[in-house]
Amino acid sequence: MYAVVKVKEKILSSNSPCAACKFLRRKCTQECVFAPYFPPDQPQKFANVHKVYGASNVSKLLNDLPATQREDAVNSLAYEADARLRDPVYGCVGLISILQRRLKQVQTDLDNAKRELANYIGPSAVLPILHQGRFWGCPELGLSERLSISSNSGPGTF
Amino acid sequence: MYAVVKVKEKILSSNSPCAACKFLRRKCTQECVFAPYFPPDQPQKFANVHKVYGASNVSKLLNDLPATQREDAVNSLAYEADARLRDPVYGCVGLISILQRRLKQVQTDLDNAKRELANYIGPSAVLPILHQGRFWGCPELGLSERLSISSNSGPGTF
Repeated sequence: MYAVVKVKEKILSSNSPCAACKFLRRKCTQECVFAPYFPPDQPQKFANVHKVYGASNVSKLLNDLPATQREDAVNSLAYEADARLRDPVYGCVGLISILQRRLKQVQTDLDNAKRELANYIGPSAVLPILHQGRFWGCPELGLSERLSISSNSGPGTF
Repeated sequence: MYAVVKVKEKILSSNSPCAACKFLRRKCTQECVFAPYFPPDQPQKFANVHKVYGASNVSKLLNDLPATQREDAVNSLAYEADARLRDPVYGCVGLISILQRRLKQVQTDLDNAKRELANYIGPSAVLPILHQGRFWGCPELGLSERLSISSNSGPGTF
């Protein structure tokens, strides 16, 4: 919070409009909701978020959040916007799908290794790790199938 | 593609405007870009996408894509919009962070199990699996740290 206030002070003291106000060609006031998170030296960050969500939607979302959470919200929006511009079809959902497949594969490898270990040290080797399989009941599982994400649609774009 | 055309035909033949046109209170024409993907019986799907991205941005994105990719694009947008409305701070980036942490943990467990196996069957047990560690060099790694996602900010919201 302190850091955010400091950034805002720095921006205002420099008399430069924030990247959002510069992009939107409007006056950057002390109450500007974008200024602390879109410094003038990062024009692309705002341009991406504006292109995907629209300034008005981002402004509404930020105004509905306490100040302490706005920086994280902006960064996650910027991340999603960047992913959507790189991959207009799947955006960061493509990465979720890849991570899910990869996790499933590594989990299978771990299960196999533990079963093999059990041959040497007994059944204790296959006891489940705490929280193992926690995500397999989530609605996200199977997303790749629902979206029909092909195996070559992901890693190269991230 | 055939299925999409069939859905469009079904919607138009029923004379019901699609969920988007109903929401926006406009006439649903044969050229409506939303109609094949926002059937009238799924009003929430469009309402969510509209709230997060705005109809105009979605329309632009769809018009820039070939028809064969639009259904996947709409589904990934709907998924991201739903995640953003459930978790306005992190959206589906929160899930990416959780999956990355989980993958890192399972990978560590696998490495340990393989090292232990090596004590019994020799060094072949620790040979890397094909593609192992493929994602650790991606810019996504460390996202949780950049966003300071706390350990209790995720699973419950998805």
